[in-house]
Amino acid sequence: MTNWIRFRDAEGRIGFGTLDQHALRVLQYDGTLFDKPKPTNISFALEDVTLLAPCQPSKVIALWNNYHALSQKLDKAPPQHPLFLIKPPMSVIGPGEAIRRPKSYQGKIAYEGELGIVIGKTCSNATVDEAEAAIFGYTCVNDVTAIELLQEDPNFAQWCRSKGFDTFSCLGPSIATGFDWRRAHVVTTLEGVERQNYPLDDMIFTPAQQVSMISADMTLVPGDVIMCGTSIGVGSIKDGASVDVSIEGIGTLTNRLAA
Amino acid sequence: MTNWIRFRDAEGRIGFGTLDQHALRVLQYDGTLFDKPKPTNISFALEDVTLLAPCQPSKVIALWNNYHALSQKLDKAPPQHPLFLIKPPMSVIGPGEAIRRPKSYQGKIAYEGELGIVIGKTCSNATVDEAEAAIFGYTCVNDVTAIELLQEDPNFAQWCRSKGFDTFSCLGPSIATGFDWRRAHVVTTLEGVERQNYPLDDMIFTPAQQVSMISADMTLVPGDVIMCGTSIGVGSIKDGASVDVSIEGIGTLTNRLAA
Repeated sequence: MTNWIRFRDAEGRIGFGTLDQHALRVLQYDGTLFDKPKPTNISFALEDVTLLAPCQPSKVIALWNNYHALSQKLDKAPPQHPLFLIKPPMSVIGPGEAIRRPKSYQGKIAYEGELGIVIGKTCSNATVDEAEAAIFGYTCVNDVTAIELLQEDPNFAQWCRSKGFDTFSCLGPSIATGFDWRRAHVVTTLEGVERQNYPLDDMIFTPAQQVSMISADMTLVPGDVIMCGTSIGVGSIKDGASVDVSIEGIGTLTNRLAA
Repeated sequence: MTNWIRFRDAEGRIGFGTLDQHALRVLQYDGTLFDKPKPTNISFALEDVTLLAPCQPSKVIALWNNYHALSQKLDKAPPQHPLFLIKPPMSVIGPGEAIRRPKSYQGKIAYEGELGIVIGKTCSNATVDEAEAAIFGYTCVNDVTAIELLQEDPNFAQWCRSKGFDTFSCLGPSIATGFDWRRAHVVTTLEGVERQNYPLDDMIFTPAQQVSMISADMTLVPGDVIMCGTSIGVGSIKDGASVDVSIEGIGTLTNRLAA
């Protein structure tokens, strides 16, 4: 397993590379992450760089109702095709960045800890095998929602609006390649208290199925992110509170809702 | 009024510039469209270039229920805030490009003739006056929909999926600056037969109101497009049929659904 990160160094330069989780050192790479990047001889102590969102998606696709446990709790039938909304590129932030409350909104803001799929190859109408090969790796996600807007209009569920605000797509800290999602859990804590702990093998559509079926809906390109949906335990974040989303092998993504 | 276009010349180079609608000549500009472009001394006959989508949005925001006439016909209350979905960048095509039926879909495909707002300045939480100043110009839109997918799942309206397919956001032929939308109509013809003809001054949210309110939901950046929603007369396109969306002052956007 390799952990890829993007970072800003002390001089403000943006780079990317691999993270050695034990030595807490970053080895910088040259080129582009999705096209045979080459290691340099530059390395940093992790504490000397600022982590950024590990990729820059052209679009973020966020699933709803993709876990059996939540589907049963909501008493909604499992879907026949991934149900999704699109979140804009400007909604993305990285580890440690603040989630900002929209100026126009005073209601509840919800966290959703999730697995994120990072696309590595352009794909369209991919088979499940081709989809598997198009997955670069996996990251942690906090899919943030201004939950009171979702059903504000009785005629139109406002998924894109309630989830599309700047800073509402938290990604990171790394993209793990060679990650076995079947053995991992998503653990979400709010101010240090565990709120979600669910197994990824409870997914309705596996990552490769998601990529295959969604690639029939639109061309996916390197860096695009599919948020796999959340399971039970979603709740709201008080202003100033911090949310951690942890997946063993990927790391812990921490973001605070600005006070 | 100025009409800005993007084009590919006979040598395959991509450029942009202004179109003289009477002389049918294109004057090429240098720089970037949204930041003081400079005229060159290169010009082309319109027939010697291939028009492209006039801008390359980072996101396309498509409104639902934004005309009084359609809102009354559907018996839905006018919304309090623009109701929108997001279409991905890869959905965009230009004038003359083919709309492609998704391989996975055999159902009806609908046209929607609309006005498109093209953003010229980054804006966030803009007042209506600031929003007006952030509008670069206007284009014609065909907001294409795989209509039978929209309500396929009883629990989740699939707006992003049904409208997000590659080639489902037709834009062009030009971006008109100094365009008075209050005096214009959208006219949509299918195989040369008029199907929509509605006045833009029937909009529920004006363009500046849309930009202002949506900029409270997400940062808008130059080149982003807001599709203002459609009015009555939407219908489906047979394979091989051609749709024209015309707005006086902007031009006629023609796209055929590939046979």
